[in-house]
This record gives sequence, C-alpha cells and structure tokens, in this order.
Amino acid sequence: PPGRKVLIVYAHQEPKSLNGSLKRVAVEELSKQGCSVTVSDLYAMQFEPRATRNDIVGCLHNSEEFNYGMETWEAYKRGALSNDLIEEQKKVQEADLLIFQFPLYWFSMPAIMKGWMDRVLVQGFAFEFPNCYDSGLLKNKLALFSFTTGGSKEMYAKGGISGDIRYLLWPMQHGIMHFCGVKVLAPHICFAPEYASEKERKEMLIAWAQRLKTLWKEEPINCSPEWYFK
Amino acid sequence: PPGRKVLIVYAHQEPKSLNGSLKRVAVEELSKQGCSVTVSDLYAMQFEPRATRNDIVGCLHNSEEFNYGMETWEAYKRGALSNDLIEEQKKVQEADLLIFQFPLYWFSMPAIMKGWMDRVLVQGFAFEFPNCYDSGLLKNKLALFSFTTGGSKEMYAKGGISGDIRYLLWPMQHGIMHFCGVKVLAPHICFAPEYASEKERKEMLIAWAQRLKTLWKEEPINCSPEWYFK
Repeated sequence: PPGRKVLIVYAHQEPKSLNGSLKRVAVEELSKQGCSVTVSDLYAMQFEPRATRNDIVGCLHNSEEFNYGMETWEAYKRGALSNDLIEEQKKVQEADLLIFQFPLYWFSMPAIMKGWMDRVLVQGFAFEFPNCYDSGLLKNKLALFSFTTGGSKEMYAKGGISGDIRYLLWPMQHGIMHFCGVKVLAPHICFAPEYASEKERKEMLIAWAQRLKTLWKEEPINCSPEWYFK
Repeated sequence: PPGRKVLIVYAHQEPKSLNGSLKRVAVEELSKQGCSVTVSDLYAMQFEPRATRNDIVGCLHNSEEFNYGMETWEAYKRGALSNDLIEEQKKVQEADLLIFQFPLYWFSMPAIMKGWMDRVLVQGFAFEFPNCYDSGLLKNKLALFSFTTGGSKEMYAKGGISGDIRYLLWPMQHGIMHFCGVKVLAPHICFAPEYASEKERKEMLIAWAQRLKTLWKEEPINCSPEWYFK
C-alpha cells in the first residue's frame, strides 16, 4: 500500500539472470502499489563481506584483543561504525519489509549476502540482550527470502536427497531474522531455473508479480521448529 | 598417524581469541602425531569471499550472460581459475582431513569462510553430476566443524530458544561437505566462551587436544536427516 517502504537486498552478478528479473519485477510491482523501494545491489556496490577492524572508525574499545561483536556494539553506540554499515542500517531502519533476492549457494545465501548479515545486524542495532527473538530490536518489520536453486523440487522434497527445503531455511529465517524480531513471510522459491524452458521462466516471473499483489495481506509464518522440521 | 595430511581452514581476526588457541592446539597436537598440517588463515590472507568474474582468468565461456557456476566449472576444466582458488584446491586435494575453525556468526560460518566454500568447491573439482553426496569427488576425505558460539548450551538444546544446535549444522555438514562426498566427524563445539572463566576456557583447549589424540579412530556421523532432526 502507498507509503510502505521496502528494502531489496539483492545478490546476483548478472542483471540478465532470473534473479535480476525477479528483482526488477519486485521493484516494478511494489512501486506500482505506491511503495517506496530501495535496492542494495551487493555485487554492484562491491559490498565488503569480511568482518574486520575496518568496520570501526577510530580507536578500539579493547585493542589488546580484537572482538568483532564487542567492538561493533561499542562503535554502534558511539556512532563510530564505518559509513557503508551506517548506510545499510538506515535503509533497514526505514523499511517495513526486507526482501532478500539471491541464488542459493551451498544450502545458504552467497557469501556477499552473508557478509551483509554479519556486518549490518550489529548488537545494539538489531538486538540487545535480552531483546532478541520476539523482542528483537527490528520487530514490526517483515522479511521474505526469495531465491533460486540449482537442485530440483524433487531433490528438496521431504525424503529427497537434499532434504526438505525448509531444513535449510532455519538458520536464515529463524537464526537471523526471527532473532532480530523480524516476522518472516513464506519464502519464494524458484526451483532449478537453469533447467526450465523460456516459457517456464516467464511463468516464474509472473507468479512472483502475482504474489506481490497480495503480499501485504499475508500472515507471517509461525517461525518455530514445528514449521521447519514437523 | 604419521603421513596424514590435515588442512585447517581458520576464520578469526584475533590470534589471541579462543578460536586462535583452538587452531594452535590442533596444529601442535596433529603435528606431534606426525601429521602434516596446513592452515588457511582466511583473515590473514585477506581471502576474497565474493564470487565474481575475477575468479576466471581470460575469456568467459558466455560473456553475454554471466553464470558463476557455469563459468567456474568451465574455467576449472581448462585450468583458468584464479590463482588463489587453485592454491586452495591443491590444499584440499592433498588433505585427508579438513578442519573448519570459526566463531558461529548468525547460525552459520562467517562470510569469509562461506566465500571459501562458494569459490573453492567448484563443479568439476568437488562434485560433478551425478557425482554428488556419497559419490562426490572429495570422497575418502573427512571434515570436522569446530566452532565457538555466543549463545549457551541451554539456548541450543532441543526445546531451547535457539533450537537444537544440530539444526544449524545441516547446511554446512550435509549441504556442503556430504554433497562433495566428504565424510563428517562429530562437530566440536565450545559454547559461550565469552561467558566462561579463564579456567573453563583452558579446559576447553585441553578437551580439544584430548579429542584430537583419538580422532583418527572416530567413526563419521550418519549424515542423514535422522541425525539432525531425530
């Protein structure tokens, strides 16, 4: 609906890829609805995935023994995180919905996107004990993982060789988003687009656009072990 | 035993950290046994985690539409992967055992280590359909995930707020290592060292050294959904 803000965190090297098209479809459809849409195009930004001392501007809290979690927490509190992180945190803060668009790499997100999680979601900003899970600091936001796979739907079925696709969603949806208080919408999965026909790939784009039309009416999943492991 | 080769892939910024100590203990104990031990110290190497066109030397197979998986597969076959990847692949090829030593970041490995998986384990080298899972190309090797957590053992118990720790091992152990044919030893987990006393941290190091003494007699886990989700 008009006024809603969406951040798309996008990780694909090739604009012509299906991931690139899925991202464009989301920008178009959500803009049409009157949402304001921001895209973090991680490869185009050459986003830094490594969690290092460079993420803290100025002196360290404890320069004797570098502790990344501690240092970024302290740096967040005194406004001393590096600029690229502050920029991403602003985008997250403003967003009502986070969409993560990526090709599945090794049962997870590509390293460049994992680096976004590792570096942007610092203590103090995204959580702060005991404010985690349902009381995480990013509550009242929604997240949606939208991704493509190499393997087929059959491989990712319960009893399939790669196991139920939900098994691999646990670390991303529960361990990251739920931990920060974000409510999770059902994932959007395009299975094996590389083995699909041109027509099937078009249908994948249409199905995504269709889903987005009624996305704001969706209820979040119940992000507990039952949803994942039955 | 003498002659066995071990590769430790290590991802911590601080040598004085518990992860740093765990890595040193492994080098010492395994060397004492007569193993030859190699360490890939990812932060010290400033290892590149991003999967980009730079990983392919020379012309692309299809420069019209960049497909990372396809291009690295083709580049592997014609010996045109970037040098840093060839170096890591040599180390993997020679190793009987891979030890991954890292602090758990967001229910998974740090992005710099995920980038090692994304970039080093290319098709043709680590798997090649239908050679995956039990017939993956890295069969006859062992892997062991050794990591520290922020959360306590209670949080990661079955029924705990973060769920059974085994849930989050599925993508790493099954989705990556088993997929490549590697047999997986039980993980080695140090829970919440930041909340432990100096004495408890020392005991963690001793326990790791102890385990390594009889490591070669261990049986791999049965890397199937039953082990993870009961």
